[in-house]
Amino acid sequence: MTTATSALVEALGRGLPGDRLMLDPDVLAPMSHDEAEWAPAEAAAVGVRARTEAEVQHVVRTCAELGVPVVPRGAGTGLSGGANAVSGCVVLDLSRMNQVLEIDAGNLLCVVQPGAVNNDVKAAVAEHGLWYPPDPASAPWSTIGGNVATNAGGLCCLKYGVTRDYVLGLRAVVGGPVAYGEAVRLGRRTTKGVAGLDLVGLFVGSEGTLGVVTEVTLRLRPAPAGTPRTVVGAFPTLVSSGQAVAQITRRGLTPAVLELLDRACLEAVEEWKHMGLDADAAALLLARVDAPGDAGAAEATAIAAAMTEAGALWAEQSTDDTEAEALFDARRLAYPALERLGPVLTEDVCVPRSQVPAMLEQISEIAARHGVRTATVAHAGDGNLHPCLITPPGDEVAREAAQAAFEEFLDAAIALGGTVTGEHGVGILKRDGMRRELDPGSLTLQGAVRHALDPRAIFNPGKG
Amino acid sequence: MTTATSALVEALGRGLPGDRLMLDPDVLAPMSHDEAEWAPAEAAAVGVRARTEAEVQHVVRTCAELGVPVVPRGAGTGLSGGANAVSGCVVLDLSRMNQVLEIDAGNLLCVVQPGAVNNDVKAAVAEHGLWYPPDPASAPWSTIGGNVATNAGGLCCLKYGVTRDYVLGLRAVVGGPVAYGEAVRLGRRTTKGVAGLDLVGLFVGSEGTLGVVTEVTLRLRPAPAGTPRTVVGAFPTLVSSGQAVAQITRRGLTPAVLELLDRACLEAVEEWKHMGLDADAAALLLARVDAPGDAGAAEATAIAAAMTEAGALWAEQSTDDTEAEALFDARRLAYPALERLGPVLTEDVCVPRSQVPAMLEQISEIAARHGVRTATVAHAGDGNLHPCLITPPGDEVAREAAQAAFEEFLDAAIALGGTVTGEHGVGILKRDGMRRELDPGSLTLQGAVRHALDPRAIFNPGKG
Repeated sequence: MTTATSALVEALGRGLPGDRLMLDPDVLAPMSHDEAEWAPAEAAAVGVRARTEAEVQHVVRTCAELGVPVVPRGAGTGLSGGANAVSGCVVLDLSRMNQVLEIDAGNLLCVVQPGAVNNDVKAAVAEHGLWYPPDPASAPWSTIGGNVATNAGGLCCLKYGVTRDYVLGLRAVVGGPVAYGEAVRLGRRTTKGVAGLDLVGLFVGSEGTLGVVTEVTLRLRPAPAGTPRTVVGAFPTLVSSGQAVAQITRRGLTPAVLELLDRACLEAVEEWKHMGLDADAAALLLARVDAPGDAGAAEATAIAAAMTEAGALWAEQSTDDTEAEALFDARRLAYPALERLGPVLTEDVCVPRSQVPAMLEQISEIAARHGVRTATVAHAGDGNLHPCLITPPGDEVAREAAQAAFEEFLDAAIALGGTVTGEHGVGILKRDGMRRELDPGSLTLQGAVRHALDPRAIFNPGKG
Repeated sequence: MTTATSALVEALGRGLPGDRLMLDPDVLAPMSHDEAEWAPAEAAAVGVRARTEAEVQHVVRTCAELGVPVVPRGAGTGLSGGANAVSGCVVLDLSRMNQVLEIDAGNLLCVVQPGAVNNDVKAAVAEHGLWYPPDPASAPWSTIGGNVATNAGGLCCLKYGVTRDYVLGLRAVVGGPVAYGEAVRLGRRTTKGVAGLDLVGLFVGSEGTLGVVTEVTLRLRPAPAGTPRTVVGAFPTLVSSGQAVAQITRRGLTPAVLELLDRACLEAVEEWKHMGLDADAAALLLARVDAPGDAGAAEATAIAAAMTEAGALWAEQSTDDTEAEALFDARRLAYPALERLGPVLTEDVCVPRSQVPAMLEQISEIAARHGVRTATVAHAGDGNLHPCLITPPGDEVAREAAQAAFEEFLDAAIALGGTVTGEHGVGILKRDGMRRELDPGSLTLQGAVRHALDPRAIFNPGKG
């Protein structure tokens, strides 16, 4: 242990029970990176598993005094390296602060700690007839704090919005213009409110660069009524599936979910799980309609018609719940099925919906040119595409080709009027891409805001 | 004209056609305040009616050089003094920059200039089968730029959200970390996107304190299908109407609109328009259900049942479009009807929905104690209440009593877990109230962000 690390550990120990400090390299190593393939992680000095806001305050105060970076993390399911350690940092693990503190059914809100797991929050509020919609694929493991840090999306954000749309208020341990380590309350408990700048919205998606979130007040919805309907279409080409997406949007149809899986995904899932998926199609589109009653039936019919007119091989409403659930299972299993084939680098571009066909074409073209194996899953209705780049384990040449294709995907998305990250965040992997996307003046304003709120640059430096 | 003003006018004139400058006191006076009763307006040095972003840039550059405040304004329909002139300022009128620049039906968005009137934007996009939901009562006159500045709400934000939920991107003329007068592009055209801090969300609701918005990219929805249903309930007491609101929320019902008018409003409208309103009730609740088909019918029935169980004198679905429209006309006419009675000071508190009955009780109690005449209209479903304080013209004692009651309403809302402003903005009238509401640390962070983006403090100083 270096002298600097000893001093840090001693200072941290003055305000924390001993069991909060993680120094064992075997414990620290998995705490030092998220799930982003190939995003570099440096060596953390120490890990802290905080259990209270006061402990977080002590960590931030100590780090500010010693000039040590603080890298907050939840479950570490991020896909852009946002939670990766930087050299000599404290990794501040919030996953033990995982309580649902309050459920207020009369006001459609709940208050949770940042380490509460998304699906656990969903389950807790469901007991009160309520619903927390944001549903990233990581929902069984990812924490609300991590969801807030990245402004996580998911499947049903097509109709119901992203994490930012559900955060009413926050508590955060901040620094800068107040003393480092001070806890502040931001936002409110009312559905509307315009008193002051929207600092809650600013913190959501800031990837831990403005402070450490210690409590989140979430807006909820009533649990959806009725049984959702599923519509599935199989397409002969990727482009025709993209055209169906564009048609569905243009006709004013609003499915709750509209997902795409390409043949490579279908094959990977089928090979693993033998679900009897139609891997002959170039792509499947999966729509879920949750409008209740006859309006829902009419919408499902209209979606199937739009698919057929866009050139689907077949498009059907699923009349069987088990069958519908199997299709959504296939969607959920796509990532792990691909990971069986080798390291997966997951892309997260988002383009205007009308450009989905063009982006799908570009993905095929770029991947072919670099000789890279890809499989695409997409929140197609949002224009948010996740082409996954799969490389044989240990193949350096393939890895470099994949990284080159990854950067070209970003440029293609920008050229189509899109963004380099729809929902995974900038982290480390998208820093260059973000700089290519955004107006230089806008980047300067961002830097100024960040500096104003963290002049010592201790909050997750080098990210976002 | 003072020497300073002459120098300012000369410098402005070097980059603007002569007809853009307003020096005539008779023209300048109405440009120097909004519709907030009793919010102080100081003497502007000059008004500028800009027609292009380049002209806005010239104004901001010039004002920064000379240390002159810039007070942006649209139609001047604000209710908190946010657009009121400060001494020696340039009032920058953007109402001539009123074009709808682009409507992109395939991507459900449009691009407009800040002076475009809300209802004009609605009409333009409706021709493409699209809908821009935010509907402040000022929609026939207020501009999108003003709506963005205050994060305007309205009737249908209960179900469809506020202005912030519809702003994807902005162009703004800013200063601070970039040269004053530089134009920057913020945000995006995609439905999702997390590249960088959410500066768009930060600008929305910032009341012109961070820069001058010159272009807005708005998210749109498909035009609603089907005919909405109206449910009306008459209540013997204000508190029972509040209980109906709480019941409707608790049962998971989501009307698009849920408005309250108290007896004083009903009487004022009836006295003026002779619509045959039931002014015997202490309050009317007006709900609009827009869910299509049988689900909409079921929801309307459930809302009427909730009203009855909360103690309504009667609760009925309107079977007659003309009758339903007349009721919503009564809602729209409430403000002008009250203004016929004398100067109206409009309150804008918002409380958690379960506290609507308690807040209505407090309003009655506080008004009675101060001997102030009030009439309450409310976006009751959101907990956003607009008690209006009416004073006889020229009665100073009554005015002071009204102002005392106004401040007590704010304290009562804060004590109930609410906010001092749901949708009108802080402006001048709510500056003290905001300081009583917000965490001091949060106010410090706000100040730091504002200083970082406007170190010379020229953008609408003394507001927000």
